[in-house]
Amino acid sequence: MADRPLIDHDYKTPMEYANTPNMDRLAKGGLVGQLDPIAPGIRPGSDVANMALLGYDPSKYYTGRGAIEAIGAGLDLSASDVAFRCNFATVDDDFRVTDRRAGRIRKGTSKLAKAVDAIKIDSVPGVRTIFKATVEHRAVLVLRGEKLSRMVSDVDPKEEGSKIAIAKALDGSDEAKRTAAAINEFVKRSHEVLREHPLNLDRANDNEKAANIVLTRGAGTVPNLPTFKSMFDLRGACISGTALIKGLATAAGMEVIDVKGATGSLKTDYEAKAKAVIEGSREKNFILLHVKAPDIAGHDGDFKAKVRTLEEADTLVGHIMDEVDIGLNYFALTSDHATPVAYGTHTGDPVPVVIAGPDVPASRVLKLSESTASRGNLGRIRGIDLMPILTDLVGRSRLYGS
Amino acid sequence: MADRPLIDHDYKTPMEYANTPNMDRLAKGGLVGQLDPIAPGIRPGSDVANMALLGYDPSKYYTGRGAIEAIGAGLDLSASDVAFRCNFATVDDDFRVTDRRAGRIRKGTSKLAKAVDAIKIDSVPGVRTIFKATVEHRAVLVLRGEKLSRMVSDVDPKEEGSKIAIAKALDGSDEAKRTAAAINEFVKRSHEVLREHPLNLDRANDNEKAANIVLTRGAGTVPNLPTFKSMFDLRGACISGTALIKGLATAAGMEVIDVKGATGSLKTDYEAKAKAVIEGSREKNFILLHVKAPDIAGHDGDFKAKVRTLEEADTLVGHIMDEVDIGLNYFALTSDHATPVAYGTHTGDPVPVVIAGPDVPASRVLKLSESTASRGNLGRIRGIDLMPILTDLVGRSRLYGS
Repeated sequence: MADRPLIDHDYKTPMEYANTPNMDRLAKGGLVGQLDPIAPGIRPGSDVANMALLGYDPSKYYTGRGAIEAIGAGLDLSASDVAFRCNFATVDDDFRVTDRRAGRIRKGTSKLAKAVDAIKIDSVPGVRTIFKATVEHRAVLVLRGEKLSRMVSDVDPKEEGSKIAIAKALDGSDEAKRTAAAINEFVKRSHEVLREHPLNLDRANDNEKAANIVLTRGAGTVPNLPTFKSMFDLRGACISGTALIKGLATAAGMEVIDVKGATGSLKTDYEAKAKAVIEGSREKNFILLHVKAPDIAGHDGDFKAKVRTLEEADTLVGHIMDEVDIGLNYFALTSDHATPVAYGTHTGDPVPVVIAGPDVPASRVLKLSESTASRGNLGRIRGIDLMPILTDLVGRSRLYGS
Repeated sequence: MADRPLIDHDYKTPMEYANTPNMDRLAKGGLVGQLDPIAPGIRPGSDVANMALLGYDPSKYYTGRGAIEAIGAGLDLSASDVAFRCNFATVDDDFRVTDRRAGRIRKGTSKLAKAVDAIKIDSVPGVRTIFKATVEHRAVLVLRGEKLSRMVSDVDPKEEGSKIAIAKALDGSDEAKRTAAAINEFVKRSHEVLREHPLNLDRANDNEKAANIVLTRGAGTVPNLPTFKSMFDLRGACISGTALIKGLATAAGMEVIDVKGATGSLKTDYEAKAKAVIEGSREKNFILLHVKAPDIAGHDGDFKAKVRTLEEADTLVGHIMDEVDIGLNYFALTSDHATPVAYGTHTGDPVPVVIAGPDVPASRVLKLSESTASRGNLGRIRGIDLMPILTDLVGRSRLYGS
């Protein structure tokens, strides 16, 4: 949600521009403040930011993103696995990346994945690979075997025109060296398997870019999270279209409610998500609802799209408020980080946060925005503070001391 | 002090209802903000909260409540002692607790304590007991000997109608097992000694509940606190009616000024406490004045009593302000946690804090309350921050770095 004032828009932010009567109502009657996802000025990835918002201190629990995504994609991971985020990409004969997303390939990736999944690693004995396509050009890779490490660098150079990188051990350990060797062989093999794949020959005929290599990044192992239930005495469920959030919730022992039409993209079925929250709230006493779209609009630098996604999210909030009584239930609304449209990337700004529900002091602000949040009645808190505050409000926190 | 808005009282808190001209004057001319005793949302016991307010990080120094209370009750403890908070209680023949406070017994507890103090522990060699009655039904027990541990569970079941609990070792250590065995024998013996005690036979004749057992809880060892003087370069004194606060102050090497009529209960001699502060401030450069009454009113769920105790505390503040020049001295006013009357228990809310004195920026708020604190000029700080701020204002802080 969060952004910065834009000179081209009367120094307003998308939140200030958007018509969001339901969020504004929550804000008026609730606690409103600023939240630093990690700490002031720290630019967080979505992984550590959402960990913190769920009450898990990333400095204690974060073990890379790859495994969280793989769990979210439905894979069963064991403690010794190392998992990676992957892209189908296009490289030329010199292994120079000409398209990091293989022309944003949408169709046939599961067929390509099947071919990649069959790859056998020869150079490192005892290591096998599991590979699964997820959304569009995205996929996950799991290395399974003894003596592996997540301390390896990315193959994905993150920019087009560069050659692919060689995975390297980030520490001196034999485990990291073995893992880097396995990854480098895997990437080479993926090119061999994919460049001749019939689907890529078809794409060439249609003048589409070949998905002729898999690029890896974000090595990670399964985070060892105490269950959400044991931390906060709440039966939690998660509604999200993105593998990362689903993976985090699964790793925390929360139920993931699958919603048809929840895509984690700009076009998602807000109505279906609202219904899932309303139904889920009958069984669970904590629902995490995640909406990805405003972040995508921010990355795309699209002010109008960001305003529109905020208004769509507001309608979603309104649907929930119609059915879940705010006089009996607590609502918390925040974002995991700012993605200002003028920057197209995450920034370290504090984000607005609202907590509304029974006995909560009213902020009386007229609109929810970055500027009203900065003068709200909650002050400035951190991501890691949110769950303790909610747990206390619902009367489920344990006394510290005696 | 702190509370939540009450629907039955025009959404006002007791602080907003109470007439507190002196606190309001401090607030208007001083720094006003929110203070999280430990961290946002964390529900603190009075022990850890007051530790933090005195500048001692409980995550570093907290070793249970029992020993702090025992020191506050005037016992001399050594590092190897384990001490417990105790209640005289009433149990039936099945050891079911029928009254956790033995009919809130007030008279004769020192005689009962003498009988309990004579108990000898047979089952655990080398362990002896020291027992002392404190206020009303309350008492403290010290186990003295080698190889004891504070990692034992409570015998007090904390609710009436339940059987007494058996003390258990909370870790696998031999020390904890020895301590648990000693406690279980002590409790059994206390019943043997007390059930036939003449005072209880008298109580039976008067239709009063027998104080026929001692229930233990809150095992603790002496916290190893650096002196308050060494931490903050201040000669400190403490004025309080409660054993906990006196014990903390003693453990920190502060002087405890005993005030006749300071009871730590709803009826306390505010006038005498004010005089003690005024006199104490001639010799000391830091006085901790603690008023327990608003917390008791909160636990009792009594809105009117809470308003009244706040007004009484305000009069106390006014008396001090008449004699201790606010143009030359610093006043800090806060509470160790919220005890909302609608909940009757501690909660994790931030509490208001005021710091007034020379050169302090004026908040210009018209009244001290939870809501003005949430928009004050101090922002949101933590309990552990208070002493460094005060030490800095009085010009006694050491430079960090160089």
